[in-house]
Order: sequence, then C-alpha cells, then structure tokens
Amino acid sequence: MQRAEPQDFSRVLSSMCTEPHAIAHDAAVRFLASNPGDPGTYETVARLERDAIESLGEIAGLPDAAGYIASGGTEANIQAVRIARNRAETRTPNVVAPASAHFSFHKAADVLRVELRTAPLEEYRANLEAVSELIDEDTVCVVGVAGTTEYGRVDPIPELAELAVDAGALCHVDAAWGGFVLPFTEHAWNFSDAEIHTMTIDPHKLGRAAVPAGGLLVREPELLDELAIETPYLESTSQMTLTGTRSGAGVASAAAVMSELWPAGYEAQYRTARSNAEYLRDEFEARGYDVVEPVLPIVSVELSDGLIDGLRDAGWRLSRTGAGEARIVCMPHVTRPMLAAFLSDIDRLS
Amino acid sequence: MQRAEPQDFSRVLSSMCTEPHAIAHDAAVRFLASNPGDPGTYETVARLERDAIESLGEIAGLPDAAGYIASGGTEANIQAVRIARNRAETRTPNVVAPASAHFSFHKAADVLRVELRTAPLEEYRANLEAVSELIDEDTVCVVGVAGTTEYGRVDPIPELAELAVDAGALCHVDAAWGGFVLPFTEHAWNFSDAEIHTMTIDPHKLGRAAVPAGGLLVREPELLDELAIETPYLESTSQMTLTGTRSGAGVASAAAVMSELWPAGYEAQYRTARSNAEYLRDEFEARGYDVVEPVLPIVSVELSDGLIDGLRDAGWRLSRTGAGEARIVCMPHVTRPMLAAFLSDIDRLS
Repeated sequence: MQRAEPQDFSRVLSSMCTEPHAIAHDAAVRFLASNPGDPGTYETVARLERDAIESLGEIAGLPDAAGYIASGGTEANIQAVRIARNRAETRTPNVVAPASAHFSFHKAADVLRVELRTAPLEEYRANLEAVSELIDEDTVCVVGVAGTTEYGRVDPIPELAELAVDAGALCHVDAAWGGFVLPFTEHAWNFSDAEIHTMTIDPHKLGRAAVPAGGLLVREPELLDELAIETPYLESTSQMTLTGTRSGAGVASAAAVMSELWPAGYEAQYRTARSNAEYLRDEFEARGYDVVEPVLPIVSVELSDGLIDGLRDAGWRLSRTGAGEARIVCMPHVTRPMLAAFLSDIDRLS
Repeated sequence: MQRAEPQDFSRVLSSMCTEPHAIAHDAAVRFLASNPGDPGTYETVARLERDAIESLGEIAGLPDAAGYIASGGTEANIQAVRIARNRAETRTPNVVAPASAHFSFHKAADVLRVELRTAPLEEYRANLEAVSELIDEDTVCVVGVAGTTEYGRVDPIPELAELAVDAGALCHVDAAWGGFVLPFTEHAWNFSDAEIHTMTIDPHKLGRAAVPAGGLLVREPELLDELAIETPYLESTSQMTLTGTRSGAGVASAAAVMSELWPAGYEAQYRTARSNAEYLRDEFEARGYDVVEPVLPIVSVELSDGLIDGLRDAGWRLSRTGAGEARIVCMPHVTRPMLAAFLSDIDRLS
C-alpha cells in the first residue's frame, strides 16, 4: 500500500477538531496500546483517567467530579440521556432540547428509543417559554447548550435547570465545544452556576487532547450507576462506558494537556480565538457581508452559493449552517495569516 | 505533572488487546488528528476507511463489503442489534444469544431497550435446540459467537443463521477476536459459509491495529440505512456510526496493517499462537491441572484461588472466567519465553 499522508489543517475552517498540543501528542503516542476500558489490567492509564476527570471538574465548577473520558461528545450526550431515561419510571420518556442541540441528541433518541422534543429558538438561544411548554410528566431530561455548534451561543442554563428540577427531570448541559472557553467569560454555564446534573465537555476539541477524548461529568457518582453493566471476565467488575475497549491515547493526552494548559494556557488560547473572530467579523462587515455576532469564537456569515463553491474548489474546508451561512470555527490552528489568506481568496473570487 | 509511562505487555496474559504492529503504530501517529467522522473535511482518512472495510470483507468472505471502522467490538455489537431492532416492526423486540455472548450484548440490551434471551450452552457452544426454543415472532436477531471471550469456541454459525432466516430475523456473528485467526482454520464462520447478515470483526485485537479500531460489516449496504442520522452542519449529509468524531489513528492503522499482514502475516501469527496455546496446555497437563481444550488459542485452566492471588502479586495480569478458571489469551505479545517465566512462577508458588 502506498504510504498515506493526512491533510494538514492549513485550510480547515469549520472543524471542531484541531491539531493536538505537542504534550498531548506525545502522551497519546506513549499510551497508544493501553486500554482504559480494562482498568484492572491497565492501571496507569486508569489513574490518568481519574486525573483527567479531576481537571474537567475544576474547569466545570465541580469539585470531586465523577465521570469518565468518553469517545467524544456524541457518546457523552447519549450516556447523559441514558442516565436520565434509566432513572425515570416512565415507559414513554421524552427529552426536551432547544432546536440548536447537536444532532447527537437525535442519534440518542433513536438509539435509546426516547422522544426528542425540540423547542424553537429566540435569537439563536433556547426560548424558555417554548421549552416549558414541551415539558410534561414524561420528561426525563432538559438539555441546554453552552456553545452551540452553529453559532456558539449559550442557552440560559440556570433557568433551564430550574425547569428541569421543577419537572423532576435531569438537566444536561452540552458544553462539548464551549467548555474550554466559557471559564474565561461571564456566562453562567457550569455546575457551580446552576443546578445541572450532567455535562458533556470534550478535551479533544478546544482542550487540545488527541481524539478520542470526550468528557462526561455527573454531579453525583450515583448517577453513573444507571449505566453499570457487569463484566464477568475482566479484572474489574462493572463498566459504565458505552464502548468497551477504549483509547489510552485519548485518556493520557487529555490528562497531560489539561495539566499543562489549565488555566493560563487555555485562557491565552481563548483570547487569541476571540481576537481572530472579531477580526474576521470586522473584515466581513467591511466588505458588506451579514455576520451573526460571534458571542463565542465561531463566525457565521452569509456568502453566496457560488462563492462558497469557489472557496471549496480553492481547497478551503468550509461547512454551512442549516440556514446556509458559512461557518468558521476559530480553533487553535486557525491563525490570523490563515484568515488573511481566506479573505484574500474571497476578494479574488467575489 | 510527572511524566506517566504505560506498563509494558510483558506480564499481560488475559487481555484481548496487544501492542500494535510497527506499521500500525506509525500510521496511527501520522493520523492522530484526522477525523473519519467528518469525511467531507478529512478525505484521506475517509479513503483509508474504505480500504480497511475492503480488507475486512476479504477476511470475512464478503466481496464489496459495506460497514465501517467502529470504536470497538462493543459498538459494533450494539449497532448490529440496533440495525435488527430498527428494521423490525415489533415494539417488544428480543435478541437470542448463547450464554457465552460477550457482555456487550447485555449493554446493547439496556441501551437499546431490547430483551436479551440467553440460551444455555453445550460443550461451551450454543445449543441449537435451546436457541430455537427462545426464538419467537418478536425475535429480531440471532447471535452466534465465532471465538468466545472465555474459551475461544465457535458456535454452529450456519445452523444459527438458518434459525434466524426461518424466523425472519437477522443473524449477527461476533468474531471480534476470532476473525483474524478463523480464516486459517476449518471452521464455518463467515459470510461465505453462512447466510449471516452482520459481523463484528476487530482490527484492534488480533488484527494488530491501534485502538480504537473495531469493525462492523453488513452483507447489504441497505442495512446501514437503519442507522443513518442527518448531519446538518457537516460537509457530509448523514452519519451511521454510534459515535460522532472518530479516531483517524484507529482507521489509518487498521488500513495499513491489514494491507501488510493479510493473509500471510496473520497466518504466521496464528500458527505461533496455536503452538503457544498447545505448549501451555501440555505444560499445565503435565503438572496435573485441568485445562479446557484450546480450540482457538485461548487456554483456560483451573488454578487455586491462592495460586491466582500469588501470580497476581508477582505482577501477572490474569483474569478469570465466570466459572473461575484462569484464562490466558495467546496474543502476539505472549511469547514462549513469557509463558516459560509464567510456568516457572507457578512452579515456585504451588
């Protein structure tokens, strides 16, 4: 077989993945062959997973955090819904989420046979009245998004948590992408800000760990008991993860890079990303394009179909929102010179 | 943080994971930052995934194979049951599996809200009469295991497939571990041997890819449609995997190592493993221990609790079957000198 080479990130504008930090890369390479899914046999990586969860807890305002490093945000979201479904009594469970919720909640609904009710938005955020109207006695979980995939918006988390508590449901926050920028903002989003029960927060996105390293946090360890399956032949006795064998690379890289970058390194990274997003917004607006205000560093902008096609032909990896805007996620690999080159291609093509 | 080092494999006896092959390791390191879950953006690794599925199809007797590289055997088993559940009409679906089926089927049953019916065994294999008695009009899937986790046994796959077809159900074969040794045996286990519909076959076990690289194969690509979820903001339009973001390391390493080792390299590896299993059986029997005959290279042996504790204290990573035997999985890292050292510790401790 010809030796395959991955593309580099020099034209990837819309991905929520990025190049792992050098420290994450090194840890991933060292732990490629360890299996955190078998903690009795692979003890070192099991210890690193506890370190990683402790770091995530610090970031998310949850001392003595419980949870685990998942394959990604999709698994963490599925598992949060599974916890909520399994602890409830109803045989016809539903989950209420804003229309901006990630498609993994649709996947969770199919996988778990739970009804997903999506509430319309107001200014790109959950409309509390609409959410409230969808909640009933079969609601097992109310979802809030802290950093939406398309526009980087933050739902009113404390208010959503109150609605959940009033309904006897769990409140889950999807901070898969936003969790590593929100600590440096004024938003109310985490366990100390609101009575939330579970959270998705992914080291392999803005945390700069190697894939696969998603994060599931729970306020009380007992919530994880809803996921436990017996493991007769392993040295350990039960397993709460959705997958079985898991990646030591993801776990070890997450532990290493969070230890290195939290908090100062992530704060510097956030300030650069915000500055890049504001630069891009200003440059688009100076050219007369309509930009959705980047609350967190994601810039969505109305470009013509022809221009988007031209940019893709020029090698830019650019995706679109459901409404059609081009979306640029200001990840660590998205630098100012890269954005300048992108704008220069826009000027050439438009 | 102190630099953490993983343990080596020199005393790991019971894991179905192993050190990735050098070629797999190199490919994994190169593709650590690519995401096969976003094939529109990461095109190279998407092509490698198609290569990997083609190789798995060759191994499993399925030309023009469809499927994908999953996070592992657990995901592949869950997804196979999900396909079977989603295509059926019943609201009270059940799955019939031998009692030897991996615990991931119990996980699948909880996740998917499917009833799991386990049939008693006969000589460590599925008893066809017992399976047949459990099948009814709500049965959506009949499971056969080709290489059981505890004893390495192969169920009567063609007969199980016939029972499934007669019931209008799918037949799923779990060859997660066995798939890379069975091609060199006389067992009937794959798509060309029997009317099976889906299969789990994991490159990251005996295929020597880097974790995470499980495999799900389906006889007809239409079966994958049961899993499709729309992906509004990606460059691609739908996603069939259980996870979202996925590991480029797993996919690239699987493609590279299968291209290198199939078939001659895997056959040589199998012959070594078989020879080691027979050596270990002979040595145990010469010492008067009861050994379960290793049909595939897994040796299960009755050792006293005290001896197992002593061996664990001496650093051997040794797990037990549900019935209590110690089980030694003859993976590529389990060499003859390692087994000799293990036997020497047994002689010292007993």
